[in-house]
Amino acid sequence: MSNSDDRQKGASIRRRAPVPVGRCGAARAVELLADRWTLLIVREAFFGVFRHEDIREDIGIPRSVLTDRLKKLVSIGVLERKPYREEGARTRHGYVLTRSGRDLGLTLIALMQWGDAHIEGQTPAMDLTRRSTGRRLRVGFIEEGEPEVPLRDIVMTPKE
Amino acid sequence: MSNSDDRQKGASIRRRAPVPVGRCGAARAVELLADRWTLLIVREAFFGVFRHEDIREDIGIPRSVLTDRLKKLVSIGVLERKPYREEGARTRHGYVLTRSGRDLGLTLIALMQWGDAHIEGQTPAMDLTRRSTGRRLRVGFIEEGEPEVPLRDIVMTPKE
Repeated sequence: MSNSDDRQKGASIRRRAPVPVGRCGAARAVELLADRWTLLIVREAFFGVFRHEDIREDIGIPRSVLTDRLKKLVSIGVLERKPYREEGARTRHGYVLTRSGRDLGLTLIALMQWGDAHIEGQTPAMDLTRRSTGRRLRVGFIEEGEPEVPLRDIVMTPKE
Repeated sequence: MSNSDDRQKGASIRRRAPVPVGRCGAARAVELLADRWTLLIVREAFFGVFRHEDIREDIGIPRSVLTDRLKKLVSIGVLERKPYREEGARTRHGYVLTRSGRDLGLTLIALMQWGDAHIEGQTPAMDLTRRSTGRRLRVGFIEEGEPEVPLRDIVMTPKE
């Protein structure tokens, strides 16, 4: 991005962020979401993992921490609770993504691309394709108004 | 994404992630990076904030935590140390993004888009435009091979 060429020269060694943390959408999103468990739970929700117990087993999170993070994710509007009932059991609640939660798909896939490209020993574990064309997808910067693939047209498939 | 329509029905209430945490690039990236301070430091690096002291003042991080996180970011290859010397002072080190660090731009802008759209009371604080065309940019899903704007062609400008 801009402004990176003159960093080591003269007066410009001293530089401060042009937008303070409290005013910046990225910083505020980081403050709400940048917690290991929080984002792993959102990843589970993208996979349709719905029940407390299944999330817990997938990611190895302590029960009370999961309860706390689910509560937080509901309170900030990323997940919502849905009742369900298995045969012979009482009604319980599972968790699904809201519209706001689904909009975190871009962030998670951006993290996946970064991890696949830059974490030592990591190779891609999932294919991301467009349902209607079968073509592979990625996350990238695009000019506003240029074609963008909607989330509902995306299929994630584990690699063999 | 796929697989979300049948969540509340019968046997499919029970569902597990198709790719385990240790094999998933997204989960592994989350484990490395999803820490509030870590991502706020990366944001500073995108703004060209270079000196320990300037980062510290921008984000309000305790000195020892900053030292710890910078060390971690260098060890995973996101930042690198660069020597600098101000007049009359000894040589010190500042921090700049590596190629891997610059590749986190997508993640940070995806978080910014999410924050601007979904955090209560948040409105966009920065314009993202393409240097060569002046057009506004966003992060989105695109088909592989479709035009993508390279990071070096992106300018971030604080809104008035």
